[in-house]
Order: sequence, then structure tokens, then C-alpha cells
Amino acid sequence: MEALSAANVMDTAYDGDAWSQQLDARFSALFETDVKAHWIATGTAANSLALAALCPPHGAVLCHREAHIQNDECGAPEFYTHGAKLMLVEGAGAKVSAEAVRHALSLIRDDVHQVQPHALSITNATEYGQVYTPAEVAALGALCREKGLGFHMDGARFANAVAHLGCSPADVTWRAGVDVLSFGFVKNGGMSAEALIFFKPELAAATPYRRKRAGHLFSKGRYMAAQILAMLDDDLWLENARAANAGARMLADAAGDRLIHPVEANEVFLRVSPDEAASLRGIGFDFYDWAPGEARLVTSWNQSIADIRPLADAIAAL
Amino acid sequence: MEALSAANVMDTAYDGDAWSQQLDARFSALFETDVKAHWIATGTAANSLALAALCPPHGAVLCHREAHIQNDECGAPEFYTHGAKLMLVEGAGAKVSAEAVRHALSLIRDDVHQVQPHALSITNATEYGQVYTPAEVAALGALCREKGLGFHMDGARFANAVAHLGCSPADVTWRAGVDVLSFGFVKNGGMSAEALIFFKPELAAATPYRRKRAGHLFSKGRYMAAQILAMLDDDLWLENARAANAGARMLADAAGDRLIHPVEANEVFLRVSPDEAASLRGIGFDFYDWAPGEARLVTSWNQSIADIRPLADAIAAL
Amino acid sequence: MEALSAANVMDTAYDGDAWSQQLDARFSALFETDVKAHWIATGTAANSLALAALCPPHGAVLCHREAHIQNDECGAPEFYTHGAKLMLVEGAGAKVSAEAVRHALSLIRDDVHQVQPHALSITNATEYGQVYTPAEVAALGALCREKGLGFHMDGARFANAVAHLGCSPADVTWRAGVDVLSFGFVKNGGMSAEALIFFKPELAAATPYRRKRAGHLFSKGRYMAAQILAMLDDDLWLENARAANAGARMLADAAGDRLIHPVEANEVFLRVSPDEAASLRGIGFDFYDWAPGEARLVTSWNQSIADIRPLADAIAAL
Amino acid sequence: MEALSAANVMDTAYDGDAWSQQLDARFSALFETDVKAHWIATGTAANSLALAALCPPHGAVLCHREAHIQNDECGAPEFYTHGAKLMLVEGAGAKVSAEAVRHALSLIRDDVHQVQPHALSITNATEYGQVYTPAEVAALGALCREKGLGFHMDGARFANAVAHLGCSPADVTWRAGVDVLSFGFVKNGGMSAEALIFFKPELAAATPYRRKRAGHLFSKGRYMAAQILAMLDDDLWLENARAANAGARMLADAAGDRLIHPVEANEVFLRVSPDEAASLRGIGFDFYDWAPGEARLVTSWNQSIADIRPLADAIAAL
Repeated sequence: MEALSAANVMDTAYDGDAWSQQLDARFSALFETDVKAHWIATGTAANSLALAALCPPHGAVLCHREAHIQNDECGAPEFYTHGAKLMLVEGAGAKVSAEAVRHALSLIRDDVHQVQPHALSITNATEYGQVYTPAEVAALGALCREKGLGFHMDGARFANAVAHLGCSPADVTWRAGVDVLSFGFVKNGGMSAEALIFFKPELAAATPYRRKRAGHLFSKGRYMAAQILAMLDDDLWLENARAANAGARMLADAAGDRLIHPVEANEVFLRVSPDEAASLRGIGFDFYDWAPGEARLVTSWNQSIADIRPLADAIAAL
Repeated sequence: MEALSAANVMDTAYDGDAWSQQLDARFSALFETDVKAHWIATGTAANSLALAALCPPHGAVLCHREAHIQNDECGAPEFYTHGAKLMLVEGAGAKVSAEAVRHALSLIRDDVHQVQPHALSITNATEYGQVYTPAEVAALGALCREKGLGFHMDGARFANAVAHLGCSPADVTWRAGVDVLSFGFVKNGGMSAEALIFFKPELAAATPYRRKRAGHLFSKGRYMAAQILAMLDDDLWLENARAANAGARMLADAAGDRLIHPVEANEVFLRVSPDEAASLRGIGFDFYDWAPGEARLVTSWNQSIADIRPLADAIAAL
Repeated sequence: MEALSAANVMDTAYDGDAWSQQLDARFSALFETDVKAHWIATGTAANSLALAALCPPHGAVLCHREAHIQNDECGAPEFYTHGAKLMLVEGAGAKVSAEAVRHALSLIRDDVHQVQPHALSITNATEYGQVYTPAEVAALGALCREKGLGFHMDGARFANAVAHLGCSPADVTWRAGVDVLSFGFVKNGGMSAEALIFFKPELAAATPYRRKRAGHLFSKGRYMAAQILAMLDDDLWLENARAANAGARMLADAAGDRLIHPVEANEVFLRVSPDEAASLRGIGFDFYDWAPGEARLVTSWNQSIADIRPLADAIAAL
Repeated sequence: MEALSAANVMDTAYDGDAWSQQLDARFSALFETDVKAHWIATGTAANSLALAALCPPHGAVLCHREAHIQNDECGAPEFYTHGAKLMLVEGAGAKVSAEAVRHALSLIRDDVHQVQPHALSITNATEYGQVYTPAEVAALGALCREKGLGFHMDGARFANAVAHLGCSPADVTWRAGVDVLSFGFVKNGGMSAEALIFFKPELAAATPYRRKRAGHLFSKGRYMAAQILAMLDDDLWLENARAANAGARMLADAAGDRLIHPVEANEVFLRVSPDEAASLRGIGFDFYDWAPGEARLVTSWNQSIADIRPLADAIAAL
């Protein structure tokens, strides 16, 4: 909010302002390589612009069956790529392995009658809060190079992944072969700005046109950039993610063998009966019903350990 | 060829000629209801124009995982629908049941984040030569009405299906709830013309524009219509299909328990070892390697029982 | 900013929050009829979503040759409509008359080879600061009804138009036949939210899906709605526009016969020599070079008469 | 017809047959350079596939205001390019000059808000039967190279143009800077096959996928290729065009100062009163009413001088 108020002045429109002009340099420093960075209002738009840069209309993007781009974006990837197909890969915890991707590729005939693969998209941390390690990403990156595929990482929870790994952001992205990253801030305390990071700047050439054409070039872009810069200052993005992860860790410890997936980021999936779920809600906690007998709890950057302890205690007491 | 030569005269361009102008009436008679019929050069274009009439860009079409529209059209449905998604349904022999479709529908959340279903597309006969009965189609048609879905039948082998069923073409289409049919002729002896049949003429309103816009409105449309009319004369389409089906029947009888799928149309899937396949090829027969140890044999409308007997004998002798 | 800070609380995501849920009612009250209202981040996206609701991919939208949708949106209308054509109409001051639209329509052959018109889009106030009166809009609205066209108003400067006219917002929109309005706030003091208003709610049915699919459904929509509601409170939108218009009026009075277009909103187009332009800039004023010898001055909602008087005096003194 | 009958045999499907496989070599010989050639069923599809190879969805194609791609293809270029814009250039006889194109380019701001030009498309012979000379094409080709634009020639009447010019087909295409040619045969005696010729084979890389995706990859492609090869044999295409041009020449000589455009190909535009038009029709001649008081006569490859003389006499006698 303070950052927004500071940006509440006149400046050059669109992304010509003093805030937006800092993005490339700030993200290049963070990632220890030259990158091209754009603010984008939503993760859906960031992902879709990334895929449009990697895949032609007649191509396919491989992703996990439960990927956000497949299930939760109302066909935005198909819209921005003008009809590319998503080809689905299996894997526990919404993670794909190099073997699983290689298998999926082996099923595609190399002829003009089948849509040919052009890119791979993974989510880190995944929809189930699983974190790809640098080595896992690198195995996928090597496969992408071998097969001539572009490599996109949906990082709606990238901060949580990095906080979990304790590595450099570079290690789990471009050093492991990632070409484009959707770097999420909104789930991590931001208001309405994500960053779309191209590690190969030449891939970004058409992105400014695509962003404008999609109605995503805001005239007062300084408000977008200011949010992001505020998150980068003093590694606020990492601090927020660490807080959220710590909360999830506490819940995981309380949940014991109720856990459905290992807890690596800020999501906790629990086995709870309808009665247990009702009981937790009865004492004031909110969460998603994921599937019959399953609950999804998401901890937030702004919840302290003290905020979360009552829920952990309640879960332990079930 | 004779029909084409007869059309080799001057006439009104596009579909204003004497041949094209007969299509609606001829197909209406065949289907015992008022239909709107268009010639279309390929099954891929016919299917795609059908789906574009049933599904908006932000919608989804359900189809079998092994449907032609999913695997063999290089994304044509996505092109013509401007990015609609195909949602895949399982089922033996590339057939979908009403239960399987209902299950697939149940997995789609009814919210704005997920692509919503707008149509179902089935193939009759299927990619494995299985034929939907009128009752099976009617069960799917009832589900489509219940759920507000359009219903498309890919009839690249529709003639083979009708020849197998011995029913009226109406029984397995509009009387069972089908809205649009791609009626194939090219696999059944035609040169380059399929028919796209709308059983609800109002659904066809934009199809002339879409056909032109796709470059499929031929200036000398009389050659297209003449092919189709020649196939309708004296039920040549049905006679051809019966011939092809009979050939497949003979092969099936010879194959015994080598059969992978029941033989209902003009496709025969056999278990053969590489050596056996080589042996059959060595004596002059051509077929597809479908999967390791599997062969796909397609009989043609212009092959007589005498043509096929040697292959049947060779299979029986393996 | 205060409105944003007030919205800086937890609430239902997307547009399920308490702020977003007020939009329909607030705009229905303002427009004296039931409307469907959506927040949209940019005018480009709002215009494009409006056109996508009115025109199919194979159709055309008529607009002025100098319309923003034609010249300043990088093809966004073509993106959102999946390739509809813009057909250009002439007219002084970027205004189109019913006669000019009728003439443009008369040039379109009614056959399948030409893209057929489906909608008209006008801008009020226009790119040259000209305001359509209710009677002028009604003449266009009647033509649209006669020809079966949808009718869109790009109201990036709608507030300035209403401030100039002194009429009810309803008089110059739905009462005059407008179907959809892009109601701009960003040029009038807002941060990043415009409103897309459907006067026929049934036309809006697919808009939530299109908005999501375009990546324009923000997860923290409350910030969007809060901005708009703050502008509606106590008619702030109208007060801001009146202030901007008054500033332009003062400049117009000072400019005398240097004026290129009548000044009706907050834009002033002046004939100035390069030396005169340099002189004005030398004493601290900023404006656009529009064409050789022409300058475009835009007054802002937050400039007082006292702020603008020095510029008016400088122009008068040229 | 004979060529079609000869192709009425079994062969490899799609474009793997013996006929289709000759196209590259035959057109390379004709054009005296290595080309990549595809059969395409219609001029509309050929033009659109060409433009899709030259222009991204966010780009623009410059063409004449009266170009076929603008007026007569129902938005096919927009469909195949996924929404690129056509930017219109003026010029007498539907011809554009390098100066006119340069002027049109000068009006496009080089910023992200405007659609940027990516290609130029000209028609030779034009919609008014005017023929671009090699020098005129070369001037446009040089401009395209200077500005980084792709260069397409719509050659629906390419044969008539070459017959008029008496030059090598190479001189008026790639030697003059043309990248892609739609080489028409249907208006010149063919049934349903045009050729799409890429003079830079690398530009054709995605065309096989786009053709399939558009439903234009016919399974019995031998019939397509056979038509084209028959037209190339013994320069039948050129002989047909010379015959049609000669007929138009005779009409032009008869018409004297009734001519609206110089007659260079097989189209004759005449000033005739309604009474005169009725009189010509009364004695058995058919033609288009082009505009009030104007008629368009198109001569055909299969009309002899003797066929046309009566019309010429009737025109002279008016």
C-alpha cells in the first residue's frame, strides 16, 4: 500500500515509468543473468503469454493432468496460443518426471496428422504443494533441449518453492534449462501484479505486442511495477513465503498420518471425515473441501505461527 | 468419374449449381426429415465445421481418447472452434457409453475457471470398427439433451455402420438425438467430397460463412455435389459399404481368436507376430502395423470376396 | 487510495467479494435500468470483450477510421473476436453519422464471400473530444435495430461526454439504443479499473468466461470494484469530468481561431507552429504533437482552473 | 478429365503419391529456382496459407482496398492468421505502387499500440485485369526488403499476367522479390487445384501442418496433383491464358472508348447503359453488372476467337 501511494504521481504512461523501467535490472540481479521482465496482472495471463511465446497455434504443450493451465484457466492457454493443445502427463503430487514426459512424447506420431509437441510446462510448487528440486528440473530441461521443446515454469508459488529449497532462484530456473518463468506475487501478498521472466530475452520479442493485444498493458503501469519492486526489496517475497511455509509445516506436524501429500510449500492436504471438517469449521477455520474425505489448507504469508497454532492444535486433537 | 464428366459443363459458381441445389432434398429424403446438407472436401473439415457450430471458443467437446478429431486432425477442431478444448472419455473399442460420458462430465466443476462442456462427438463406426446401435446412440442423445450438449457424429464410416446395422439412417442419427453428422464418402469410394448434415437446420446458419472463410467453398462446386449424388443414386453408398463389410467379415472368420476387436464394419484388428506379418506381406498383402504384435486391415468397397479370399486363407493358414 | 486501503482485507476471491457484488445494483441505479456490470482492468480489454459479445469471428464491426479500437489497441478486437474485421467509416471529428454508417453498409454485398456487419462501435466523447448528443446516438441506434447490428459505445471519456451534455447517463446510452458501454474511469482519476456495462443482460452471458479466459479475472477483485465504487460515490466521476472539461473550456476560449475542433470534452486541438510549441514547452507545459503544426492538449480531472490559467494565458499571448 | 482418370488408381494417401511428389521439381523447373510447392483446393485457402506464413496474429498485411483477400474471402486471411489486420492501400486499377505502399507505411506509428506491418500482398493480374510488370514488382520487392516485409503475390490470374508480359515466370516473382505465390489454375481451366509456391522453402516449414489443420490435406491428393501437372504439361496453363487474353483483346478493340480500364488480361470493364446491357443479354451474352452503368466481361480459356466475335461485333454495334 505504501508502495502504491508512492507511485500515485504523474509519470510516463504504460511501462515507460521509472518503476517499470527497473524491472529488467532488478530481476537480472535476482536471477544472476540478463532477463527480460514484464508485469502482468494475473497468473493466468502470465502463463498464457509464456506459452504463446513457446508454442505455435498448431503445436502442443505438455503439462501435468492437474496443472492450473489445464484445469483452472478456462482455456486461456488455448486462447493466447490460438488453439494449441495441452497434452497431459501423469505423476504423483501433480509433478511430472522426465520419464513420464519421455513416455508421453513417445506416444505422439511424428507426422502432419498429429499435433506436434513444442513446449513443456511445469508448476513449481505444484498444485499439491510439491517442490521440484534443481536436479529434477534439470532432468526435464535436458529432455526439452534434446527434443527441441521450450520450457515454462508456472511459478504461482515460486516463492514457496525457493523458500523450501533454500537455493538460488537461478538454480531452479535457467540453470536447469527453464526458458520462461511466471513468477507469482499475488498469492504471496501482492495485490494484482505477477512477473513474467524470459531467461532468453529473444523469446520475449513479441510479448509486448501480445500483452497490449490482450488488454494487459495498463496505462498506469507504475502501480504494477511498484508492487513488484516492493516485494523484491529486502527479499520480502522470500520472507513472506517462509512465513507461509512455516505455518504449513506446523500444520503438517500436527496432522501426522492424516497427510495425503508431503508438505513442502504452503499447502496441506488432509484426510478428514465430514464430521471432523465440520468440527474444525465450527471453531472458526476455513479451508477447501478437496474431494470426499479430503481437505486442502492453504497458509498465508500474513499468518503468524501464533495465528496458526490453534488450528494445528485442533487438528492434532481430532 | 462419369458423374464428374457429366458435371464438366458450365453452371452457376460455388454451390448455386444444379447439382449442389439438390443436396438438401436428397439427404432429406434419405433421412426422412428436413436437413441442411453441405459438400465439404474432407472429413477433417466437415468434423471441424460441425464442432464450430456446436461449441464456442471457450467451451469443450467431449470425445473418446482415440477419436480422429483428437488424434488425427492436427488440431483442426481447435482451429475451427478458435480454441475449444477436447475432453477425453475412455471406453473399449473407442466407443463411449452414456455412463462414461456422465462420469467425465461429473469431473468438470461448474465455475468460470474451468472450460465448460458444450458438445459430445462420437464416431460411428469407431476407429476400431465398432458400431454404435440406435439404442446406444439414443442413450447418449438423451444425456446430451439433459445436459444441454450438442451432439455430433463423425461418420467417416457411417455407411459401414448403417450397412452393419441394417437400420434406417434416421434411426441411428436424429431419431437418437444426433444434431450434426459428418457423412463420409471418400473412404467409401468417393473422390473428394463428404457431406455435412444438420438435422436442426438452424444450427447451420453460420456454416456457409465458416466454409467460405476456411477456403472450402469451391468455385466449381458442381464437381463436389455430383460425386455425392452419384453415391446416393441407387444406394451406391450402402452397396459399397456392404461389400467392404463383407470382406472384413470373411477376414474375421478366418482370423478366429487372433481378433482384438469384434468386426462390425470394414476394419479388422489382428494379433500377428512380426514374422507372421512379414509372411503376409511377402505374399503381397498390405496393412498397417498398429502396435507391436498388432495389425490393422481395412477392406475396401472395390474389393470383391474373390479378391479377399487369398488373404483370408493366408490368415487362416498362419 | 482510501478506497483501496479499505479493501485491503480478506474477502471472497475473484468477483465474489462484497465490493464486486454491488456493481450491478449501483450501475443499475445510475442508468435507471437493470444492467450487468463487470470490472475490467483496461479500456482495451473492456472494448474487446464488448465486441466479442456482439460479433462472431466471421463478422464485422463498423467504426470510425480513427477509432481507438482501430488504431490504438494492437489488434485486441481482432484477438478477442477471433478475427472479425473492422470496417471503417468516415466523419469529421472522429464522429460517424447515421448517413455515413448507412453508406458504409450499402457497400457490403450480402453474400457469403464478404464479411457481413454485426455491430457498430462509436466513441463518446470521440478521439477528437467531440460529444455525440442523445439524438445523434438515437439515430445510430435506430439504424442498428433496422439492420440487426449490435451497438457498442467506447466510453473511455464517457464521463466527459455526460458532463458536457448534462443529461442522464441513460439518455445517451440504452435509451438511444446502445447495447454495451465501456465506461472509463482510468482517464478520469481511476487507477486500473473500467466498467463494462451490458444494458441487455443476456448479451453478457459468456462474458465471465471470456474475461477469465483472457486472464482478466483478478483474484483480488475487491480492489477493482472498490475503485469503481469510490468513483460512483457522490458522483465523483462526474465531478472529475466537469473539472477536466472546464479546464479545456478555458484553453479553448484562449485559443480562439487556433482551434481545430470544437471543444466539448477535455481535449483541445490547436494549430501551433513549431516555434510556438517550443515556446509553450519552454515555460513548462507538456502536450502531444498531433500532426505537423498541430498540438493536442488534454486537461486532467485533478487540474484546477488556477493550474490551467497560466497555459491559457500563454496560448492567448502567442 | 483424362488426367483425373489416369489418377484413378490406388497410391499412397495424402501427398505421398507419385503425382504430388513431382510438384516441387516441376515448379522448380518452371521457376528456374528451388521452390516448395503444395496443391491447395482454392485460391482463398492458398492466399490465406501464404499470409499465415508471412504474418503473425498481431501483425498486419498491406493490400489494395479492392484486393480479393479484403473483399471476397469472408475473412479467410483473418481466420488463418488468427486475427492479423489487412491495411488498405489505394491505387488505380487495383494496383499499388511502391510510393503508395511507402505512404501507407508512413502512417503506422512504430509503437506497441498499433498493429505493425509484416507483409505486402499484391494481385497479378489485378481485380481489374491490370498486370504488374517485372519492374513494378521489383520496386515493391525492394521496398519489402527495406522494411522487413514478406511479399505475397495472389496469382489467381497469374497465367494471364505472364501471357500478357511474355516474360519468364521467374522475372515477375522471385527475381522481383516475391516470397510466396498463389498460382491459380481453377480460373484457367482447372477443376479444383491451385498451387502454393514458396520461393524461400524455409518459409514453408509450418505449411503442411496448417494445411492439415485447415482440413485441406486431401486423402486422395493424387487427383489434385494430377490436375496441376496436366496444366503444366506443354505449357497448357500458358496456352489457355493466351486464348482468354486474346478474346479479351478482341472485345477491348471493339469497345473503344467504352473501356474503363486498359485490357491486359482476360477482364474487360465497359461503360454500358442499362438498355445496352439488356440488349447484349437479349442476344445471349452473360456478364456481371459491376456498378451502375458498368459491366465486367470475363473471357475464358475455352472460348475461341470465333466464339467471341459475335459479342465483339455486338459491342461495336452498340
